[in-house]
Amino acid sequence: MKDAVVITVGNEVLKGRTVNTNASFIGNFLTYQGYRVKLGLTVMDDLEDISWAFKTAMDRGDVIVSSGGLGPTFDDMTVEGFAKAIGSDNKLNQDALAMIEEKYKNIEITPERKKMAMMPEVCKPIRNPVGTAPGLLCSVGGKKVVILPGVPMEMQALLESMRDSLAIENSCYFDESI
Amino acid sequence: MKDAVVITVGNEVLKGRTVNTNASFIGNFLTYQGYRVKLGLTVMDDLEDISWAFKTAMDRGDVIVSSGGLGPTFDDMTVEGFAKAIGSDNKLNQDALAMIEEKYKNIEITPERKKMAMMPEVCKPIRNPVGTAPGLLCSVGGKKVVILPGVPMEMQALLESMRDSLAIENSCYFDESI
Repeated sequence: MKDAVVITVGNEVLKGRTVNTNASFIGNFLTYQGYRVKLGLTVMDDLEDISWAFKTAMDRGDVIVSSGGLGPTFDDMTVEGFAKAIGSDNKLNQDALAMIEEKYKNIEITPERKKMAMMPEVCKPIRNPVGTAPGLLCSVGGKKVVILPGVPMEMQALLESMRDSLAIENSCYFDESI
Repeated sequence: MKDAVVITVGNEVLKGRTVNTNASFIGNFLTYQGYRVKLGLTVMDDLEDISWAFKTAMDRGDVIVSSGGLGPTFDDMTVEGFAKAIGSDNKLNQDALAMIEEKYKNIEITPERKKMAMMPEVCKPIRNPVGTAPGLLCSVGGKKVVILPGVPMEMQALLESMRDSLAIENSCYFDESI
């Protein structure tokens, strides 16, 4: 049995301003992929808290899926938090930059927009079919870490597009618990 | 600033079969009481996981509110998990037993039903105005731990009834974040 951990990043979720439907969607998706969803973590838009969440999740799960904090604004710091958790730097990923340039077309790529192409070397960008920020699929010590935006439509489309990457071989869904 | 942690217990929440509206309600309630809701934890109906959640929450928050796993059935083990986290035993609380007997009237108090009156000595039972299982208000090393049922109507009514116990003196709600 492979264990999954779901991370949700965002003050608005903790304050109850937003109901955490992203966690339900991801939990449901992972369950039907054959994972046991063992833990859900919701943390603030805070670098230390996000870093703690990824460390805790990697201690307790085989696959980690996060949503939220992936955009261009100052409080979007999920990738930086993940990099801190694994003791890595964020570097400009050329494939991600190309994806972002394609979305913005002739609009200037400001440093804030470029931020969405920065990631640790263990990550590869996944094209966002709905919005701008690419999703990230990362591999750390045999564990998979998937980092998704918080906008539900974008998160859902990206997760669907990663179905094969997250498949467990010879797995079928069997529910023995209530 | 006092920090709050919200714990939700239940496989059905992790699997996305139930959307975690309890966490939103509690997060919103605590925010308006003047707490900063720092962390949300969702764990399985598993003794070790529940115990881990309470330990982690007490490390990171001043007040902890949990919902779920408080009923009479075998998979309701939140109080046992909390007792394990603080290295305490569960003992029969006579006030809680009286509350439960009052609800069941002339129906037999089976061991499963009696379980709802078992708690560590640092906890006191709070009358459930809607259902049977009393809520728990516990005090551990200057921290408050509130343990509530998972049925939304029961959880909400109990939390409302504890408003004064959870009040922060001279606190007002001020939101500086987004």
